[in-house]
Amino acid sequence: MSHKAGLPPGTLVHVGTENTSDVKLSLIYYNSETAEQKLQLKIEECSQYKNKEGITWIQVYGIHNTQIIESLGKLFELHPIILEDIPNTELRPRYEEFNDCIFFTLKNLEFDTDKTDIRYEQISFVFGKNFVLSFQEKESPLFKSIADRLLSGVSKARARGTDYLVYLLIDATVDNYYAVAEHVEDKIEELEDRVIDDKTGKSLSEIQKTKRSLVVLIKTVFPLREAIGKLLRRENPLVNDSTQIFLNSVYDHAVHIIESIETQRDILSGLMEIYLTNISNRMNSVMKVLTVIATIFIPLTFIAGVYGMNFKYFPELSWPLGYAFFWALCLACVLAMLIFFKKKKWL
Amino acid sequence: MSHKAGLPPGTLVHVGTENTSDVKLSLIYYNSETAEQKLQLKIEECSQYKNKEGITWIQVYGIHNTQIIESLGKLFELHPIILEDIPNTELRPRYEEFNDCIFFTLKNLEFDTDKTDIRYEQISFVFGKNFVLSFQEKESPLFKSIADRLLSGVSKARARGTDYLVYLLIDATVDNYYAVAEHVEDKIEELEDRVIDDKTGKSLSEIQKTKRSLVVLIKTVFPLREAIGKLLRRENPLVNDSTQIFLNSVYDHAVHIIESIETQRDILSGLMEIYLTNISNRMNSVMKVLTVIATIFIPLTFIAGVYGMNFKYFPELSWPLGYAFFWALCLACVLAMLIFFKKKKWL
Amino acid sequence: MSHKAGLPPGTLVHVGTENTSDVKLSLIYYNSETAEQKLQLKIEECSQYKNKEGITWIQVYGIHNTQIIESLGKLFELHPIILEDIPNTELRPRYEEFNDCIFFTLKNLEFDTDKTDIRYEQISFVFGKNFVLSFQEKESPLFKSIADRLLSGVSKARARGTDYLVYLLIDATVDNYYAVAEHVEDKIEELEDRVIDDKTGKSLSEIQKTKRSLVVLIKTVFPLREAIGKLLRRENPLVNDSTQIFLNSVYDHAVHIIESIETQRDILSGLMEIYLTNISNRMNSVMKVLTVIATIFIPLTFIAGVYGMNFKYFPELSWPLGYAFFWALCLACVLAMLIFFKKKKWL
Amino acid sequence: MSHKAGLPPGTLVHVGTENTSDVKLSLIYYNSETAEQKLQLKIEECSQYKNKEGITWIQVYGIHNTQIIESLGKLFELHPIILEDIPNTELRPRYEEFNDCIFFTLKNLEFDTDKTDIRYEQISFVFGKNFVLSFQEKESPLFKSIADRLLSGVSKARARGTDYLVYLLIDATVDNYYAVAEHVEDKIEELEDRVIDDKTGKSLSEIQKTKRSLVVLIKTVFPLREAIGKLLRRENPLVNDSTQIFLNSVYDHAVHIIESIETQRDILSGLMEIYLTNISNRMNSVMKVLTVIATIFIPLTFIAGVYGMNFKYFPELSWPLGYAFFWALCLACVLAMLIFFKKKKWL
Amino acid sequence: MSHKAGLPPGTLVHVGTENTSDVKLSLIYYNSETAEQKLQLKIEECSQYKNKEGITWIQVYGIHNTQIIESLGKLFELHPIILEDIPNTELRPRYEEFNDCIFFTLKNLEFDTDKTDIRYEQISFVFGKNFVLSFQEKESPLFKSIADRLLSGVSKARARGTDYLVYLLIDATVDNYYAVAEHVEDKIEELEDRVIDDKTGKSLSEIQKTKRSLVVLIKTVFPLREAIGKLLRRENPLVNDSTQIFLNSVYDHAVHIIESIETQRDILSGLMEIYLTNISNRMNSVMKVLTVIATIFIPLTFIAGVYGMNFKYFPELSWPLGYAFFWALCLACVLAMLIFFKKKKWL
Repeated sequence: MSHKAGLPPGTLVHVGTENTSDVKLSLIYYNSETAEQKLQLKIEECSQYKNKEGITWIQVYGIHNTQIIESLGKLFELHPIILEDIPNTELRPRYEEFNDCIFFTLKNLEFDTDKTDIRYEQISFVFGKNFVLSFQEKESPLFKSIADRLLSGVSKARARGTDYLVYLLIDATVDNYYAVAEHVEDKIEELEDRVIDDKTGKSLSEIQKTKRSLVVLIKTVFPLREAIGKLLRRENPLVNDSTQIFLNSVYDHAVHIIESIETQRDILSGLMEIYLTNISNRMNSVMKVLTVIATIFIPLTFIAGVYGMNFKYFPELSWPLGYAFFWALCLACVLAMLIFFKKKKWL
Repeated sequence: MSHKAGLPPGTLVHVGTENTSDVKLSLIYYNSETAEQKLQLKIEECSQYKNKEGITWIQVYGIHNTQIIESLGKLFELHPIILEDIPNTELRPRYEEFNDCIFFTLKNLEFDTDKTDIRYEQISFVFGKNFVLSFQEKESPLFKSIADRLLSGVSKARARGTDYLVYLLIDATVDNYYAVAEHVEDKIEELEDRVIDDKTGKSLSEIQKTKRSLVVLIKTVFPLREAIGKLLRRENPLVNDSTQIFLNSVYDHAVHIIESIETQRDILSGLMEIYLTNISNRMNSVMKVLTVIATIFIPLTFIAGVYGMNFKYFPELSWPLGYAFFWALCLACVLAMLIFFKKKKWL
Repeated sequence: MSHKAGLPPGTLVHVGTENTSDVKLSLIYYNSETAEQKLQLKIEECSQYKNKEGITWIQVYGIHNTQIIESLGKLFELHPIILEDIPNTELRPRYEEFNDCIFFTLKNLEFDTDKTDIRYEQISFVFGKNFVLSFQEKESPLFKSIADRLLSGVSKARARGTDYLVYLLIDATVDNYYAVAEHVEDKIEELEDRVIDDKTGKSLSEIQKTKRSLVVLIKTVFPLREAIGKLLRRENPLVNDSTQIFLNSVYDHAVHIIESIETQRDILSGLMEIYLTNISNRMNSVMKVLTVIATIFIPLTFIAGVYGMNFKYFPELSWPLGYAFFWALCLACVLAMLIFFKKKKWL
Repeated sequence: MSHKAGLPPGTLVHVGTENTSDVKLSLIYYNSETAEQKLQLKIEECSQYKNKEGITWIQVYGIHNTQIIESLGKLFELHPIILEDIPNTELRPRYEEFNDCIFFTLKNLEFDTDKTDIRYEQISFVFGKNFVLSFQEKESPLFKSIADRLLSGVSKARARGTDYLVYLLIDATVDNYYAVAEHVEDKIEELEDRVIDDKTGKSLSEIQKTKRSLVVLIKTVFPLREAIGKLLRRENPLVNDSTQIFLNSVYDHAVHIIESIETQRDILSGLMEIYLTNISNRMNSVMKVLTVIATIFIPLTFIAGVYGMNFKYFPELSWPLGYAFFWALCLACVLAMLIFFKKKKWL
Repeated sequence: MSHKAGLPPGTLVHVGTENTSDVKLSLIYYNSETAEQKLQLKIEECSQYKNKEGITWIQVYGIHNTQIIESLGKLFELHPIILEDIPNTELRPRYEEFNDCIFFTLKNLEFDTDKTDIRYEQISFVFGKNFVLSFQEKESPLFKSIADRLLSGVSKARARGTDYLVYLLIDATVDNYYAVAEHVEDKIEELEDRVIDDKTGKSLSEIQKTKRSLVVLIKTVFPLREAIGKLLRRENPLVNDSTQIFLNSVYDHAVHIIESIETQRDILSGLMEIYLTNISNRMNSVMKVLTVIATIFIPLTFIAGVYGMNFKYFPELSWPLGYAFFWALCLACVLAMLIFFKKKKWL
C-alpha cells in the first residue's frame, strides 16, 4: 500500500496481487413486474439504465482495470474517493455516505483446505436510488443464487428497493463466514486431539498458524460489524425502515461470529498451555526415570570399586563367601533405594 | 450454521442436533377472573384465541418442525425474521422489537453431572398485547410451576399483562443458572483440594474443561444481560412501568452471575498457577535429592578407584590400617558433604 | 442461591448461613429539637411513627426472620422486590428507586485476623421522606456512634433529612473498608519480606489466599461505587443538593479504595513473579554447584581407573614416582577445571 | 486513613506522617497595577483582604495544623468537606465545585535519588473570584518563580483572574512530573544495560522497584488528568474561556506523561522477559557444557574399568601394545563424541 | 522536556536534539488562476501576503530558531500556546482550535534501515482562512510533489480552501507511515524465518527491538487518529464539508495502520513464545540424549567394576570364557536399555 504514497488523492491505483485477466461486466435490470439480464456487458450500454425506473444491478468482476471503474464512476457521478477505494484490496470493511449514494466495502473469505489458510477477496458495493454496483476481484458463484432468484421472480427483492438487494448481498457474504469459521473450528478440534500426544513439536507451529487465521477472521468481521452498525443507525433515506430489521439480523450474525472466534482464541491459548505443560511433563518423566536408574547404580559402583582396591590387609577379600556377600550387599542397597523411591512416590 | 448459507432470508431451517420427536402444543388462556388449559392442542384451535381479550399463552415443545412454526407465524402475523430465528438453536440471546410484538430468545442451561458438562437448550418468546408464544426444544418442567400458579389463580400474573408473564418465564430460566453456576463452583472447589497433591496430571485437563464450562456460561449470560437491558430501557408500550422494577431485579441477577463467573475464572487461573508450580516443585525436589545422593558417592568412588590402582610403589596399600584409613576417609568425606549441604539448606 | 429457583417472585427467603438468634428492633425518633430512643421495640409500636413528622430510624438486627421484614414492609408499604432483597445476603451492592422510597444495600466487611480472611455482612437501607429502615445480620457497634450523636444532639443530622442520615450510615461502612484494606496491605507487606527467603513453598498458597481477599474486597467496593454514583446522579427528590456534596466525598473514598486494591493486586503479581523466579534461581544454584562437583571428579575417576588397569606392559605403574605423578595429574586437572569454571563465572 | 473511621463528617484530621514543624503563612496581593507580599502572615491579617478587589493569594505551608485550616475556612466561608480534605495527604487528585469557589487537589512529586524512590506531597488549591488559597505540606521552592514574576510585574497573570493563577500553579506542578518521569526513564535505561549481564539476581528486585515507581507516578497523574479535564469541561463562571486554552495544554502534558509511563511499563515487562530468559539461557549453557564433559568421560571410564578386570583369560592385557591400544580407543571414542556433538551443534 | 519546568507559559523553548543549521523559509501563493513560489524567503516579505486574497502557504524548515517562529507568530497574530508548541519536538499529535485558525501537529516517520530503527520528525500546521504555515525540523522532499502540482496547476487544491491543502499535507505524511509499517513487517517476517533455527539468542533482543519500533509507531498513529477525528467532527467553519469526506479517508488509513500494527504485535508475541519454546525444546533434547548415553554406560561400568574386584574366591574370573561372558552381559544390558527407551519413545 506504500506505492500510493506521493500520489495525489483521487488517483486510481490497484493495490493487491497483480492480475491481468479480463474484466467482466454483467447487468440485471428488474422491477416488480419484469427482470432481464445482460451478460458480457459493455460500458456504453450502461448509460441507458442510468435514469431508468426500476433497479439496475451492475456486477463488475476484476477491479485491477481502473479504466472501467473510472468510466462507471463518471457515468454514475461517483465521488473520486469511492473510485479510489474500489481497486484497493487492502481496504478494511467500511461504510461511507455520499450525497446520492452509499459506499460499502467488505471482504469475502474462503478457506483454502490445502494450505489450511484463509484467502480473502475485496467486494465493494455502491448503491443509489435505482442502481447497485458491485465490484469483485474474480468471478465467483457467491451472488449467483441471488441473481437467479431475482430473474425467476421468486425473490421478495423484486418489490423492494436497492437497500434490500444490498442487504441480500451482504447477508450472502456473511453467511459464507460461518463456513470459514467452522473450518477453523474443525482444525482446532483436530489440534486438541493431537496436542496431548504430540512428540514432534509440529503442533506448536500449527497452533500459531491457526491463531493467525483467527486474527484474519476477526480483522475482517470486526470492522464489518461496525460498518453494518453504521448502515443501521444512520438514518439515510436510501435505507428503508423495513430493511433495517433484516440488517439487524446480519449485524447479529456478525456479533455471533466474533464471539465464537473469541471462544476459539481462548481454546487455542488453553491448547498452548496444555502443549507447554506436556512438553515439560514428558521431559520431567524422562529425567526422573533416568536419574533413578543412575542413582541406583552409583552406590553399587562404589561398592564394586571398594572391593577392587589393592590393600594388602583386606579381610573381606579372603572370606570364602566374600563374593556372595558383595552381591547381597548390592541387593540390599537396591532394595533400600527402591523402597525409598516408592515411599516418596517417585516411581 | 453454515448450512443456511445461500438460502434466501426468511427460509425456515432447523439448526442444531437432529430431532424427530413429535411437536407438542399446549395453551393456557387466562384473565383476572378465569383460567383454562388445553393440552395436546392443534394449530387450528389457536385461531379462536387470536383476538380474544385476556391473555393466551401457547407453549410449543419442539422447534425442529418448521411447518408448525410457520403456521403459528401466519396466524399471529409474525415477521419472517422471527420465524427464521426460532428454529435456530445456535442463536445468541437476543431482544428484538417489532410493530406489534417483541421477540426474546435465551438459553436454558442444565448441568450434566455425568460428563461434568453443561447442556443448553434454545428458548424463544414472542409476545404481543394479548398473547405469549414460547418455543422450546424439548418438553421440560421449567415453566410448570408458573403454569400451575396461573391456573390455580394464586399468581399475581393473572391481573397483569403479557410482559409480566414473560418476566416470570425469564426469571425462572435465570434462576436456573444459579444451580448450574453452583455446580461449576463445586467442581472448582473439588479441584482446589485435588490440585495440590495431584501426581497424575489429570487435573490439567479438568481445569481446562471447567474453564470451558465457564466460557459457555458467560457466553450465555453476557448477551442475555444485554437483552434484558434493552427490554428495560427501550420504552416499548408492551412493557409496563410496574414490570420494569421486576425486570431490573432479573437484570441484577444476571450481573451477579456474571460477576461470580469472573471470580471463578480468576480462581481457576490461580489453580493453574498452583498446578504448574507444584509440578516444577515436585520435579525439583526429586532432582535435588537424587543429585545429592549422586554427589556424595562420586568422591567416594574416586577414592575407591585410587586405591584400586596398580602402582608398584604405593605406600598406603601396605599400611596395616590402610583399609580402615580408607573407610575413615570416606566417612569424613560424606560428613563434610552433608554439613555443606545442610549449611546451604539443600537437604 | 439456587434454592430460590422455582419460587414465585415476592417470596421472602433467607439466603445465607442459617441463623436462629432472636431478631432485635430498636428505634430512634428525632427532629431538630428532640430525639428519643426505643430499644427492644415491638413491631406494633412502629405504626404510630409512620406518619409522624420528624425522622424515624428503625434498626433491625437479624434478617433471617422474614416475618418481621414482611410486617415492616406492610407497615411502610414497601414494594415486594425490596422485601425479597433484604433477607438475601448474597445480593451485590445495589441502588434502586421506588415511588416513595429508595432502597440501598451494601456489605460491611470485617478482617478475621485469625484466619486472615474477610468476613462480610449484608446491610440494607430503605428510606423515605420521614423514615429510615436499616437491616443487618447481627447486632454490631458499627452505627453506634451515629446513634449516640443523634441522641445527644451534637450531630448535624438532626437538622437535615433522611438522606443525610443514610449518608452517615454509608460513610461509616465505607470508612470501615479502609481498616480491612490496611489489614490486607499489612499481610502483603509481610509476604514481601518472607517471599524472598521462603523455602517451604507456603508463600504460594498465602499469595493465592491474599489474592482472593482482594477479589472479595473489589467485588464489594466496585458495585458499591456504582450504587453511590447512581444515588448521586439520579435527581431523586429524596436526595437534597446539600447532601450530594457529602455523597461525592464517599464516592471518592470508594474510588480511592478501588485504586489501592488495584495497586495491591499489581504488587501481589510482582510477588508471585519474584517467588517463581526465586524457586528456579535456588534450584539452578543447587544444580550448578552439584554438577560442578560431579564434573570435577569425573575425569579424576577416569584417571584412577586408568591406573587400575591390569595391562602387562604398563610403563607408569613401575615408575618410582608413579603414584606422586598420579596425584599431580589430578591436581592439574582440578585446577584446570576450576580456572575454566571461574573464567566462565559459573562459580 | 482508617483512623478517621467513626468520626463524624467535617472533623478535621491530619492523615499522613506526623509533623510538628511550625505552620507558615504568606500572602501576595495583586491587581493589574500593583502587587505586595506579606511573609510570616498571621491569620487575623487575612480578613482585611477578604472583600478587597484584586486578587489575594495566601500560601499555607504545613497542613498538619488543622486549627489554622479551620480559621481560614471560617474566614473564606469554605464548605466543611473542603476543610476535611485539605489535611488528608492520602487524598487522590480531585476537582470539586462549590457555590462560590473551586477546590482542586494534586500531588507534587520528587525523585529521591538516594533511595531511587518517589516522594510525594499533597497540594490543595481553593479559589474564588478574588482569592486563591494554596496548601502544602512543607515549604518548597515550587511556586517561587511564579510569586517572583507576580511581584515584579512581568507575569501576564497580573491582568487576569484567579483561574489563570491556579493554572500557573498546576502547570508548575505538572512540569515537575517530567523531571521525575525522566529520572525513572534513566533508571530503566541503566537497568537495560545491566540486565543482560546480571549474574547477581539484583536486577529482579530493581525491576520490581522501578515498576512500583511507575505505579506511583500513574496513580498520581491519571486522576489528575481527570481532574483537569473536569476543570476544562464544566462551564464554571470562575474559569474564563481564555484560560481554557492554557488548561488544555496542561491536560495534554498530563496525557503525554501517562503515555510515556505506559511505554516505560512495556519496556520494563520486556526487561523482565529478557532477565528471565537470560537466567534460563545461562543455566542451560552451564548444564550443557557440564553434561557434555560428563558424557565424554563416562565411556572412557567404562573402558578403563574393562581393562581393570581380573579375568584370568584376558587377551588384550598381555598384548605388548595393549596400553597404547587403550589410549587409541579412548581417543577414537572422544573424537566420535565430539564429532557427534558438533554435528548436533551442541558445542 | 523537564528543561521547560519553571518557565512561564508562552516562553518559546526548542525541545529536542540540538540543531544549528540555518532556517529556511519558502512561500507558495496561489489562487484558482495563478500560483507563484518564493524560495529563500525573508520574514519581512511575508507581511504583504497576510491579507491578500488567495492562499499563502509558508513552509518553515528548522524549528530550533524560536525567533523566526515568534516573528511569524506576531505577523499572523497566533496564540502564544501555538508558538510554544511548534518548537517542542516531543509533543504528541494534537489538534487545537483557536479563534481564527487551527493548529495541527503530527510526526513524520522514517525507517532507518541501517539501525533498523524509526526516526521521527515533528511537523506542525497552522492554517487560517487564507494562509497555511507548515513547520518542519529539516528540509525534506515530503511535500515536494504537492508544491509542484500546486505550481503546475494540475492540483485540484487550487480551486479549494486552505483546509484541502492541509488535508493534502496530512495525507502525504500518513501515506508515508505505510512505508515504515511495511519495513517493520518485513523485519518481522525475516525474524519469523530466523527464530526457529536461532541458536545464538540474538533473536531475543531483535524481537524486543522490533516490539519497541511498533510502540513508537502506535504512539505516533494513535493520537493522530484522535486528532484527525477532532478535525472531522468539530464543525469548524475553516473545514468545508467537501473536505470532510477526504479527511474521513485519511482517518480510515490511520485506523488501518493501527490495526495492522496490532496484528504485528500479536505476531511478535507469538514469535516470542516460539522462541522460548524452542530454547527449552532444544535444551530438553540435548539433556535427553546426553542422559540416555550416561544411563546406558552406568550399569556397564558397574559390571566392569564387579569383575575388577579382588575377591580370592571369584568363580567367573577363572572361567575360560569369562571375558566373552562379560561382553555378552554388557551387550544384553545395552539392548535391554535401548528397547526400554524405544518403547518409552525417548529416542
